[in-house]
Amino acid sequence: MAGTTDALKRVMLGRALASNRLGETLLPKRIALPVFCSDPISSVAYATEQILLVLGTAGAASFLGFAAPIAVAVAVLLAVVVASYRQTCFAYPSGGGAYVVSKDNLGRNASLTAAAALLVDYVMTVAVSVVSGVVAITSAFTSLAPYAVPLSVGFVVLLAIINLRGVKESGTAFAFPTYAFVALTFLLLASGIYRALTGGIPEAVSAHLEPEQTAQVGGVFTLLLCLRAFASGCTALTGVEAVSNGVPAFQEPKSKNAATTLLIMGALAISMFSGITGLALASHAQAYSEGNPSVISQIADSVWGRGFFFFAFQAATAGILILAANTAFNGFPTLASILAHDRFLPHQLRNRGDRLAFSNGILLLAGVSAVLIVGFDANIEKLIHLYIVGVFTSFTLSQLGMVRHWRDELSRTSDYRRSIRRSQLINGTGAFVTALVLVLVVVYKFLGGAYLAIGAMIVLFFLMRGIRRHYDDVSIELQPEPAGSIRPSRNHAIVLVSELHAPTLRALAYAKATRPSDLIALTVAVDDEKDRQLQAAWNAWQMDVPLTIVSSPYREITRPVLDYITRIHRDSPRDVVTVFIPEYVVGQWWEHLLHNQSALRLKGRLLYQPGVMVTSVPYQLRSSEKAADLENPADAPALRL
Amino acid sequence: MAGTTDALKRVMLGRALASNRLGETLLPKRIALPVFCSDPISSVAYATEQILLVLGTAGAASFLGFAAPIAVAVAVLLAVVVASYRQTCFAYPSGGGAYVVSKDNLGRNASLTAAAALLVDYVMTVAVSVVSGVVAITSAFTSLAPYAVPLSVGFVVLLAIINLRGVKESGTAFAFPTYAFVALTFLLLASGIYRALTGGIPEAVSAHLEPEQTAQVGGVFTLLLCLRAFASGCTALTGVEAVSNGVPAFQEPKSKNAATTLLIMGALAISMFSGITGLALASHAQAYSEGNPSVISQIADSVWGRGFFFFAFQAATAGILILAANTAFNGFPTLASILAHDRFLPHQLRNRGDRLAFSNGILLLAGVSAVLIVGFDANIEKLIHLYIVGVFTSFTLSQLGMVRHWRDELSRTSDYRRSIRRSQLINGTGAFVTALVLVLVVVYKFLGGAYLAIGAMIVLFFLMRGIRRHYDDVSIELQPEPAGSIRPSRNHAIVLVSELHAPTLRALAYAKATRPSDLIALTVAVDDEKDRQLQAAWNAWQMDVPLTIVSSPYREITRPVLDYITRIHRDSPRDVVTVFIPEYVVGQWWEHLLHNQSALRLKGRLLYQPGVMVTSVPYQLRSSEKAADLENPADAPALRL
Repeated sequence: MAGTTDALKRVMLGRALASNRLGETLLPKRIALPVFCSDPISSVAYATEQILLVLGTAGAASFLGFAAPIAVAVAVLLAVVVASYRQTCFAYPSGGGAYVVSKDNLGRNASLTAAAALLVDYVMTVAVSVVSGVVAITSAFTSLAPYAVPLSVGFVVLLAIINLRGVKESGTAFAFPTYAFVALTFLLLASGIYRALTGGIPEAVSAHLEPEQTAQVGGVFTLLLCLRAFASGCTALTGVEAVSNGVPAFQEPKSKNAATTLLIMGALAISMFSGITGLALASHAQAYSEGNPSVISQIADSVWGRGFFFFAFQAATAGILILAANTAFNGFPTLASILAHDRFLPHQLRNRGDRLAFSNGILLLAGVSAVLIVGFDANIEKLIHLYIVGVFTSFTLSQLGMVRHWRDELSRTSDYRRSIRRSQLINGTGAFVTALVLVLVVVYKFLGGAYLAIGAMIVLFFLMRGIRRHYDDVSIELQPEPAGSIRPSRNHAIVLVSELHAPTLRALAYAKATRPSDLIALTVAVDDEKDRQLQAAWNAWQMDVPLTIVSSPYREITRPVLDYITRIHRDSPRDVVTVFIPEYVVGQWWEHLLHNQSALRLKGRLLYQPGVMVTSVPYQLRSSEKAADLENPADAPALRL
Repeated sequence: MAGTTDALKRVMLGRALASNRLGETLLPKRIALPVFCSDPISSVAYATEQILLVLGTAGAASFLGFAAPIAVAVAVLLAVVVASYRQTCFAYPSGGGAYVVSKDNLGRNASLTAAAALLVDYVMTVAVSVVSGVVAITSAFTSLAPYAVPLSVGFVVLLAIINLRGVKESGTAFAFPTYAFVALTFLLLASGIYRALTGGIPEAVSAHLEPEQTAQVGGVFTLLLCLRAFASGCTALTGVEAVSNGVPAFQEPKSKNAATTLLIMGALAISMFSGITGLALASHAQAYSEGNPSVISQIADSVWGRGFFFFAFQAATAGILILAANTAFNGFPTLASILAHDRFLPHQLRNRGDRLAFSNGILLLAGVSAVLIVGFDANIEKLIHLYIVGVFTSFTLSQLGMVRHWRDELSRTSDYRRSIRRSQLINGTGAFVTALVLVLVVVYKFLGGAYLAIGAMIVLFFLMRGIRRHYDDVSIELQPEPAGSIRPSRNHAIVLVSELHAPTLRALAYAKATRPSDLIALTVAVDDEKDRQLQAAWNAWQMDVPLTIVSSPYREITRPVLDYITRIHRDSPRDVVTVFIPEYVVGQWWEHLLHNQSALRLKGRLLYQPGVMVTSVPYQLRSSEKAADLENPADAPALRL
């Protein structure tokens, strides 16, 4: 069993990697860009559409013109946030996610709020990115539409497997679609500009789309509409913080490389987003309120027609959308590991798996996002409302923390004061702007579904506090005390006996070797026939240990043994009772089914008994030797999760 | 958790019963009759229909006249089998099912064949009886028809719960519908005879049913048709062996009471079956090839009209059909317990649960028959083909065994030779007749589905042989030898350490108290930071036990510990290594999730290591004390399966 599972694991994930190979998996910038930035870059594929969608609902094509200033505002916001996070990369070379920054500067509650926001946001990134990638595929191949849920879950599983293989290989696997998308987008922009200069771009298929409702006009209405379109357009910013979280995964000099990568990402995203919005306006493209064809595919259609480049671009779009989820597969497990290290999440999330990735975090993220995809029936319209509220919560807290960080720096040092003040100004601007956007997003998205994300954040917040409290309580109880080293005065040994067979003899011999104060053999009378046989065998073998029989009117093993031990413990509470359990060990899982599991149950219960030690005296049957060999192939470590 | 489960169990099943109350659950004849005979009595409800169904397919109403001689043949067969099994009741007062009888007289393979046949047959009894009872209900209330599968499974679950409560209460619960069915059937016969004498019975609704195919005439065809109808009519015999299996459940004198019950059952079944067939012929009722109304309901309709008695009779019919499954719920767990005692089935099936019923057998039977019902979509037409082949296999083997039994008696004693020869003649006739029927049944039912039942019997046969071989192998390996008592020369103690906390101190103190030859503390280096902390604490506490650190490049706990121990064992194979594992015990299940399960995994693996003893040194946290109290309410024993 374990052997087979292990072999399967090796085929899927590759050989185990030693800890000292962690350095080898550090990323150069050209790989770090697709690994950490596929999320913000891919959002270019739908951010323009989100703006046009809101403006389109207003009912008059004239409103679409507002897309230009709104897009400029989003681009400026993106630039501000990128600039802010570049400061973080330098200030926190060991990884400066919103959690770490707010923990250092704003205290526990702020940092847990940021952590909860990030965890929710990572899950949403996986769900939204994978589902919108699948929507792109199913729009191209409509016959696949009924399989949207299994396809999406399948991609989540695939991402999980790739990430379990380790951080470097996943980077290589993801580089191609990201660069293909970037290259084709710039080719699209170049072609579009060329056509605009040489005779104009043909109109998009949706250019004369009828509005769904009649136009409402008014200054306040126009303002609210633009704010709402802006809030929707802010999806372009999701995932920017991944780089600052992932600084330790960069090659040296880590901070500088990370900051440069952020800059490259910002430049790419802003120019692509602006260009696409410009072309959308030039081709008079509008967004359909229900799906396809997407604005970006309408533009490609107008500029290129339905030829090779159109389909290559569609494929790259679908590819980068699905792979954007990979940003979260890097961010979530790392953050979970940090939180586990700080004892806000279970220990199991803290450690690296045998391919040096944080296996449990990867599995948890994949599981929760798969549940979300199934629960929302892979419906992107509903899922997207849960998104970005987490992003901007963590943005705001992170920037606020950085403002405080620079203030502390100023009070500590008299060097570089100008530079520090400049950084503080940048982060202050970031904090102010992202806080404004957060309010906008909460207002406009709350009823649509953001309340679910906010609820999840609140639950996570209190869950993490509860876990920490539990660990703290246990840690206090486990404090070593000098009195803890005092040896027990007497040790009563009890060997549990069901039959007089070789394991029993071995247990008795071993029990004697531990030189207890006294030694008895204990059996529970369940079956008269077996009891008589045992008594007879005991006499025939002339055993020198007395056999004590306790009766069990309810044909039950555990209770009478516990009662017997409780009585000893009550009579002499300072003594220790050692229970020796002879166990024979079989090899195959089905062989376990053929033997009573009373010993296992009894062992579990005895652990709750104060002053009782439980010793298993195993007796290996021949079939178990084969099983032990199988589970110990020389070059593969045993399974661990 | 365990406390809640236990409370639920008590509400469902009642208080645990002590072993010495087993005598109280012995059955008087008036209760034993419904408990063991509801199956053969209920088959009266459909046996006539099965005969008419085969004759009806022949295409001419004239063939229906053959139903009379065929019914007589079935009645004679029933009388022969009842007479045969009465001999068994006297010869085997401790329970003489086909398995026990063929084991005693025909050897292992014949007895395992009989056992496999019976086990399959019991499962089929549950499935067929429950489903046909539900068909009766859904025919009356057609709106329930789509819920046939969940209804059937629900009844199986209900039967399982009633039987888990214990044998006597289930008898009382089942007495009423059985007696109601018997009484109403005799009232129907009486009313029918009265009406026949005073002006004739009105024709049944199906009297002028058009045949589905044209008549084929010919001597050989008629003969084959009658044999086939006879094979189908033999469903009337299912379940007759239950009484001989259940002799020990009867009140004293067990054998005599059982034989008398069998006689009463035979008399009831033969007279009811003959009477119903007679009334069917008198009212010219025919069987519909697809379901309703059933022949027996057509008769009731003709005789009584659709009044109170008609509906009461329908209710009693549905009731006894579902409860017929109870025969199997008595027979299967008892047989499984005998087989487990003979080590052909796992130990777990051997013991009585805390209500003195064989709980695991009941659960197994309910599970398998529920799967069968779901798998066959509660389709009675398909299920019935899998039936009776097992019945007649066990009949034949059982009677053959009895013939051999009486031959041995003759060779042993010179008393009662006439009486013994008479018994032998009866069983010989039974064996001959049932063997003939078995051949008929296999021929006529094989392709319809009997091949599945036969396949299951073959699988069970080899499975039981395999299980016995495993137990025999283990038993030989476990033979005690005088050398097994030799004390190990040296005992190396290893205390596993992850942190220096109170449980570690306690484990070290206890390890010292066992006076080992040498003692070390062992830790695995996974995390540099934690290792330094541990080293520092070790020095600060001035521990007198050396701390050994083994490195773990793959961040894995189990492997390095196993390697270390293997090395000690290789150096001195005659010594013993005792591994002390400090464990802290938390109370709630969710608390377990918050602590690494490495200790549990390691313990499991160490059991496979020769010469290694594993001692758990538990350290109870405060929360665990509450949990221990909850699991030990004063009057309810801990859960066991």
